Amino acid sequence: MSELLRKGRLSHVRKDVARFTSSAKDDERLVRHIVKINKAHVIMLAENGIIDTEDCKKIIEALNKIDGKLELSPEKEDAHMAVEEEVIKAAGSTVGGNLNLAKSRNDQVATAIRMNLREELLKLVETILELQDALIQKSERNLETVIPGYTHLQPAQPVTFAHYLVSQFDVLQRNIERFEENYRRVDLCPMGACALATTSFPIDRERVAELLGFSGILENSLDAVSTRDFLLETLANLALLAVDVTRFVEDLIVWSTSEFGIAELPDEFAFTSSIMPQKKNPDVLEVIRARMGILIGSFVSCATVLKGLPSAYNMDFQEVTPRLWEALQTAQSCLSMLSKVTLSLEVKPNVLEKPSLTFLAATELANMLVRNHKVPFRTAHKIVGALIKTLIDEHKSLNDVTPTLLAEISDKFLETPLDVNVEEISISVDPYLVVKSHKTKGGPAEQETRRMINARKNVLTASEKWVWEKKDILEKTDRSLDAEADKILGKG
Amino acid sequence: MSELLRKGRLSHVRKDVARFTSSAKDDERLVRHIVKINKAHVIMLAENGIIDTEDCKKIIEALNKIDGKLELSPEKEDAHMAVEEEVIKAAGSTVGGNLNLAKSRNDQVATAIRMNLREELLKLVETILELQDALIQKSERNLETVIPGYTHLQPAQPVTFAHYLVSQFDVLQRNIERFEENYRRVDLCPMGACALATTSFPIDRERVAELLGFSGILENSLDAVSTRDFLLETLANLALLAVDVTRFVEDLIVWSTSEFGIAELPDEFAFTSSIMPQKKNPDVLEVIRARMGILIGSFVSCATVLKGLPSAYNMDFQEVTPRLWEALQTAQSCLSMLSKVTLSLEVKPNVLEKPSLTFLAATELANMLVRNHKVPFRTAHKIVGALIKTLIDEHKSLNDVTPTLLAEISDKFLETPLDVNVEEISISVDPYLVVKSHKTKGGPAEQETRRMINARKNVLTASEKWVWEKKDILEKTDRSLDAEADKILGKG
Amino acid sequence: MSELLRKGRLSHVRKDVARFTSSAKDDERLVRHIVKINKAHVIMLAENGIIDTEDCKKIIEALNKIDGKLELSPEKEDAHMAVEEEVIKAAGSTVGGNLNLAKSRNDQVATAIRMNLREELLKLVETILELQDALIQKSERNLETVIPGYTHLQPAQPVTFAHYLVSQFDVLQRNIERFEENYRRVDLCPMGACALATTSFPIDRERVAELLGFSGILENSLDAVSTRDFLLETLANLALLAVDVTRFVEDLIVWSTSEFGIAELPDEFAFTSSIMPQKKNPDVLEVIRARMGILIGSFVSCATVLKGLPSAYNMDFQEVTPRLWEALQTAQSCLSMLSKVTLSLEVKPNVLEKPSLTFLAATELANMLVRNHKVPFRTAHKIVGALIKTLIDEHKSLNDVTPTLLAEISDKFLETPLDVNVEEISISVDPYLVVKSHKTKGGPAEQETRRMINARKNVLTASEKWVWEKKDILEKTDRSLDAEADKILGKG
Amino acid sequence: MSELLRKGRLSHVRKDVARFTSSAKDDERLVRHIVKINKAHVIMLAENGIIDTEDCKKIIEALNKIDGKLELSPEKEDAHMAVEEEVIKAAGSTVGGNLNLAKSRNDQVATAIRMNLREELLKLVETILELQDALIQKSERNLETVIPGYTHLQPAQPVTFAHYLVSQFDVLQRNIERFEENYRRVDLCPMGACALATTSFPIDRERVAELLGFSGILENSLDAVSTRDFLLETLANLALLAVDVTRFVEDLIVWSTSEFGIAELPDEFAFTSSIMPQKKNPDVLEVIRARMGILIGSFVSCATVLKGLPSAYNMDFQEVTPRLWEALQTAQSCLSMLSKVTLSLEVKPNVLEKPSLTFLAATELANMLVRNHKVPFRTAHKIVGALIKTLIDEHKSLNDVTPTLLAEISDKFLETPLDVNVEEISISVDPYLVVKSHKTKGGPAEQETRRMINARKNVLTASEKWVWEKKDILEKTDRSLDAEADKILGKG
Repeated sequence: MSELLRKGRLSHVRKDVARFTSSAKDDERLVRHIVKINKAHVIMLAENGIIDTEDCKKIIEALNKIDGKLELSPEKEDAHMAVEEEVIKAAGSTVGGNLNLAKSRNDQVATAIRMNLREELLKLVETILELQDALIQKSERNLETVIPGYTHLQPAQPVTFAHYLVSQFDVLQRNIERFEENYRRVDLCPMGACALATTSFPIDRERVAELLGFSGILENSLDAVSTRDFLLETLANLALLAVDVTRFVEDLIVWSTSEFGIAELPDEFAFTSSIMPQKKNPDVLEVIRARMGILIGSFVSCATVLKGLPSAYNMDFQEVTPRLWEALQTAQSCLSMLSKVTLSLEVKPNVLEKPSLTFLAATELANMLVRNHKVPFRTAHKIVGALIKTLIDEHKSLNDVTPTLLAEISDKFLETPLDVNVEEISISVDPYLVVKSHKTKGGPAEQETRRMINARKNVLTASEKWVWEKKDILEKTDRSLDAEADKILGKG
Repeated sequence: MSELLRKGRLSHVRKDVARFTSSAKDDERLVRHIVKINKAHVIMLAENGIIDTEDCKKIIEALNKIDGKLELSPEKEDAHMAVEEEVIKAAGSTVGGNLNLAKSRNDQVATAIRMNLREELLKLVETILELQDALIQKSERNLETVIPGYTHLQPAQPVTFAHYLVSQFDVLQRNIERFEENYRRVDLCPMGACALATTSFPIDRERVAELLGFSGILENSLDAVSTRDFLLETLANLALLAVDVTRFVEDLIVWSTSEFGIAELPDEFAFTSSIMPQKKNPDVLEVIRARMGILIGSFVSCATVLKGLPSAYNMDFQEVTPRLWEALQTAQSCLSMLSKVTLSLEVKPNVLEKPSLTFLAATELANMLVRNHKVPFRTAHKIVGALIKTLIDEHKSLNDVTPTLLAEISDKFLETPLDVNVEEISISVDPYLVVKSHKTKGGPAEQETRRMINARKNVLTASEKWVWEKKDILEKTDRSLDAEADKILGKG
Repeated sequence: MSELLRKGRLSHVRKDVARFTSSAKDDERLVRHIVKINKAHVIMLAENGIIDTEDCKKIIEALNKIDGKLELSPEKEDAHMAVEEEVIKAAGSTVGGNLNLAKSRNDQVATAIRMNLREELLKLVETILELQDALIQKSERNLETVIPGYTHLQPAQPVTFAHYLVSQFDVLQRNIERFEENYRRVDLCPMGACALATTSFPIDRERVAELLGFSGILENSLDAVSTRDFLLETLANLALLAVDVTRFVEDLIVWSTSEFGIAELPDEFAFTSSIMPQKKNPDVLEVIRARMGILIGSFVSCATVLKGLPSAYNMDFQEVTPRLWEALQTAQSCLSMLSKVTLSLEVKPNVLEKPSLTFLAATELANMLVRNHKVPFRTAHKIVGALIKTLIDEHKSLNDVTPTLLAEISDKFLETPLDVNVEEISISVDPYLVVKSHKTKGGPAEQETRRMINARKNVLTASEKWVWEKKDILEKTDRSLDAEADKILGKG
Repeated sequence: MSELLRKGRLSHVRKDVARFTSSAKDDERLVRHIVKINKAHVIMLAENGIIDTEDCKKIIEALNKIDGKLELSPEKEDAHMAVEEEVIKAAGSTVGGNLNLAKSRNDQVATAIRMNLREELLKLVETILELQDALIQKSERNLETVIPGYTHLQPAQPVTFAHYLVSQFDVLQRNIERFEENYRRVDLCPMGACALATTSFPIDRERVAELLGFSGILENSLDAVSTRDFLLETLANLALLAVDVTRFVEDLIVWSTSEFGIAELPDEFAFTSSIMPQKKNPDVLEVIRARMGILIGSFVSCATVLKGLPSAYNMDFQEVTPRLWEALQTAQSCLSMLSKVTLSLEVKPNVLEKPSLTFLAATELANMLVRNHKVPFRTAHKIVGALIKTLIDEHKSLNDVTPTLLAEISDKFLETPLDVNVEEISISVDPYLVVKSHKTKGGPAEQETRRMINARKNVLTASEKWVWEKKDILEKTDRSLDAEADKILGKG
């Protein structure tokens, strides 16, 4: 524990207790933010006459020295005290002793976490965009690649690989929306809330927020130090993302089995067995799937920790933040790897050749009976169902349907047996023609999917613009904070 | 299982299996939405010449009959088949047999859930607004009610009850934002996606969406039937709300202990023990706390169910929806009860009388030393810390500080002992004056909190307007769907 | 709220508050246990001279009247007060007013939950045994049914269906162990702990425990009323069971896809689509899978509720119990359905015919090279791996391996090319012979699996005996409690 | 990826993919177990004539060299391949190439995890025993330290600190039971299951299990490589432990508030604020509480990962193990710290002095009316309730009860007002006498708690013996494995 805080109210702390409760190790990523916060804070103090400009200058010089070079041992209480200690060492206790005037670790740590989370959310959105881009690239090359669509893991109707990839794009888009909305709630500055009640010094909270590039302040001071909802929301959003990504990966794992045989991972993404020489295992997909599962537990961990706490700051908060960074890192690296996998995926040729897959056209056959022969849909459904049962019992496929067979079977369901011609049948049961005919909005027909892809390219551009604007704000803020500091240092 | 679907592909199903998999019981709340969807669907089919207007008329007549009166026994497969059976019974199989033309249970159930969820989200937001309103009402009457602010459950600094209540308002406001954002993603119509691949009939998806009051369609058809992210997002948001509400309730439980003695529940909200006659237990708060905990598990249940599924429809989806309604109902009833509790809460008189609570002013005493005597803050912190240690050892309070004592103690930390006058001390240690001096933005001073309350009244009005507009859209949609149906029935 | 407890310390409670906090609806299943507890309690009080035998008689008469016929409206506080009210109504307030002497709702509810949980755990174990029995029956008929064994969902080595089913038996056996161990911790009586501190009356806790068929008392009184670990352990065990059952069901779902085509559900367990007539969906398996997922969330719900609570009784406990019963009911019905599915499962003929599955023998081919030709295993692994790569590239199967091809390929890895004869190859690549050769303990060879099945039959019998003995204790206890009551009523 | 496995079936793997999927970093703790397993395996192979003794000797020499010195870079696939590579390097490919004969990574990793988990479970039980020992030590010194017992966080009845500490002992004891039961299921050896189907080589699975100190083999080979239930059970048990520990810690946090003022942490365990000099925060307890919350999420993470997997080995397993070690480490360090806190805890003097706490005796006052004045308990409960209401309204305590006041109040509930003498009252309302009178089994009376403590000392000894015996087996096994290896090396 920092000696700065002992010998007044409390005597020494046990070393093992200090090590046990220290957050020093996990604080490393926060140091540069804490330095910035301290700069912004003392600039504001000086601007408002709360400290002398000369003192402010000395403090900024001290802060400039430690930037990036602070060592945090587990004996240190945390990064906040370590920075303050360095400043006092460099600027003397008379000047440096006022560094924590009109602020507290409570508002400072909340601010530093939000600053780091802004950057991490932008990185995360960038990795999602990378994956969306891969999906778009791949889909453009697969507009006519017909694959079986499944429900209940049973062959349902033919779609295209492009149609499927666009659906994954849209799933991700909703995740991006959620992270953007989350960002807005993260991008508010708690500084000036101090311990929980603001201060009696005439500080300017908006100025500090501006110097740190926040879109505004988190107003009510009790709220500002109490809440960790902004990061729990991130973890909830990561859990939602994890569910979505797992479903995509699960599809790929199933499709790359030798039984489904729809897609194949290139060798460079696959592994074999230490004992079974024939194996080609999709380890990389399984690892992504598993890590996505871990994310759901991370949300539970943090929700459980926060749930029972009384309002305002509790030390429990400290244990939540490392899980946030860990979860973000997991999501980023998995999505990035998944982009590479997506780009490398190829649909195998002839995936529709299996006899069982001819039944994918069954709905269209029924539709044809409705359209051409005025059979009510529910009856057409039964006729085709009975037809398929017969075909399966006789080890045949839908390609074996004849007008005679249809007539025979329809006889049980209709007053007059159907009189369908060969061409009607052959058009209905050709999966490529079936896909072509499904040109309803949102459907798999080539021109419709192409339209969707083009629209999504604009969506992608808009998201990229959003990220770019936010990054630009953060970079400009860094430069302008340096400029303000330089002004005080007389370097301006 | 509905006989409509048997005897074609499949023979009979076992009764116990049918009962086991049936969703009939949980579908009850969806029936009226399913009826509307079917109406909108057949109107669109007729408008686009896919079915005859006369057939459309008969189907609408049949649908009008069953509205609200459909009995769902556990032997029925689900509400979708039950509605279709009724229509076929009333309109005959030739006409009614086309009810499911160009649609599927997959898009229909997703649409019906979204329609019901729209209503439930609006109800939920209304109950949050009810609580926010109670917080505002209560805070206006407690602008000068000074209470101890705690961190780590240890007395920290004085705030006011109003200041605290406004912080809870702000917490809830972020939840409202999340539910509004969620609403936008719920308010999209999957109809026309059919099983997963749209259809070869020339349907008009936007028209159906319009007739059902959706803001647009959920475009990609695979996505439209695959995703349950919209409801998992609701459950995630409920989990986030649960964490927030629990923290508020936890405060109230702790504050209503005889030891903290800050607030008291009126008798009409409290319970006693069956054996200990003196007990006055806050059962109602404990029940809310517990039910909030349940909500976190509901999210986990549903995330776990959805996580492993391949894309497109899987029967597992069916098990998720009942948990959604249950969770929403729990949240609504708990928030509604919490509004009543909030309105009834009173802060006890003289809550600051305990000697231990005089130390709430310690930070301000240190601030005064900085302000008036140019002591660096870190040194002032140590002096006041050591002062308090002495006072506690002597069983004294901060009211017992004298200039002499301060001089004595400061001697260990400063070259010249402090020369503080009595008035300086008495101003610093009076918690009411401390609160008054904390007029920084977001702080507890009366005028600042009053300003915040006024701003929040506008926020509340805006939220109410949002709910009102959405409800208005839904009501108008219902009326216009009826009007369209009447037009076809010749009643227009 | 019960009027019995008002008008002393507290005035009236609001009706809406009473309804909100009431556990009456969920208490229904506890009524018969509460009646028994009250009987046992007053018999003990009379035996120890704490109440008169005559009063005891009147109370027992009153209790006998209400047994099973008590109506619990949501206006009632809970079943405990409802029973006490009935007794007071029937026996008068002078006699009945002592019913709650030397006990409390706190120990009573904990005891009633434990009594009900004993029964439910036995029912649950019975349903697991039902499933184990189905697995054994099915495995006996499939000792020679060779199926592909998978790892990473990729074909690995041939095993038998019986071998697989025995592995599922063993998984379940560990679950049974856990529930039996759990039962021992449930089967302890909290009665006499009263509110939390026992009582000053000279009660006999062991006697009450004996009259209620417990194996002992839960000694420390604070512990006895504080802990809900016994039921959280049940929920944890259910979550573990859920993970295991889901994996079994997941296998069956994958195996019953048309692509894997290993097993098929009979029609009477399957469902079709409302739009796609060819579909045969394994809804029943998907529903089981989903409900298992729900169980994991139930554990989280209850752990979250209990986690933050201070020791001793808190009202939050009340919200946990309904989730326990719900979870047990879910598990019981799903396992029971799964037993029926298991009995109906058939492995399709010719499952090994697919060319890709010939590679299941690859490890054995490598083993043969080690055994017959002294090739180090790691080299043999590479040779066979390269061999398979060649075969796949040429669209061939392992049946196409010739001595020449092996010699050619081995040339790259060995100094002298391999000289393998045709018979060596044909023995190695025949999956039926491979299975026969795997007669190591725990392996798939017929005689070894038969040995395992026989051993498991004994395990099954032992488990059945355990259940039978516990049920017998509970039944005998009921009879002897009645006999003790009759003695006091003079009927003995 | 290890080159040992490439160039046969698969060509090169991408470096980023290799790094992404590598478990090398997390495998470090498994290396020494993997070395032992390999030794035991080759000894068994040699004993059964499957490899030459001379080859066995060379392999053991190679294994001896790498023991503890193996470096695992993230480029390595995993520890298993790294060990094999080292052996091949040292012993040559002809000899070393047979190291993986008749085994696989699948059985080897499951075995190594079980070996490490055995050690970790023993360490964990030891830390629980350390805490139990602290509880016993502390309780012996606090047999007459009367403290308020709470329910619903409201004062309920007086108990003693010793009575409370014993209840915590008992809670922990049930956790120990669960971990011991878990240990039995961990202590089974999967070796010989190979990839999933055993092997055609005549191996002796029991011999390997014996050489590694297991109590037996995990028989069915599919089960042996498929199951991770043994470690999920550990995680479930840790979650149960976490709930229990949190409740204990929550008590201590509440008790150490200045408001409750029951216990105080010594300075050396406490921290102050960076801004509020008066603060003395129980950070160490809050950190323990938070880390316990994390454990619940760890279970969820791993259950979620495992839940959806098909049977047999999947790569997802790899992601689960690091969470297991992390969770065990968290639990061990937190419990160890909590032991130190427990030993340092002191109950403050005069904790019963607060007027509100006099009502702790209310139940006993009611009991006295039943015992001495034949008032039915339910009526006595009302009289005392009304009495307390009067006292509170008049700002009085239970010490202010007089015979006259009791008579007055009882008049509303009884036909004849009560005639109670002063001594009866004073005995009933003295919390020290109340505690003395609660000598029922499990109660707080000094002699009864002393009896419980003595009994628990025996329980503690038995647990310590259990740990000692298990550790002894593991140590003896290590020595005997070395001896067997030495025999082959000719050193025996």
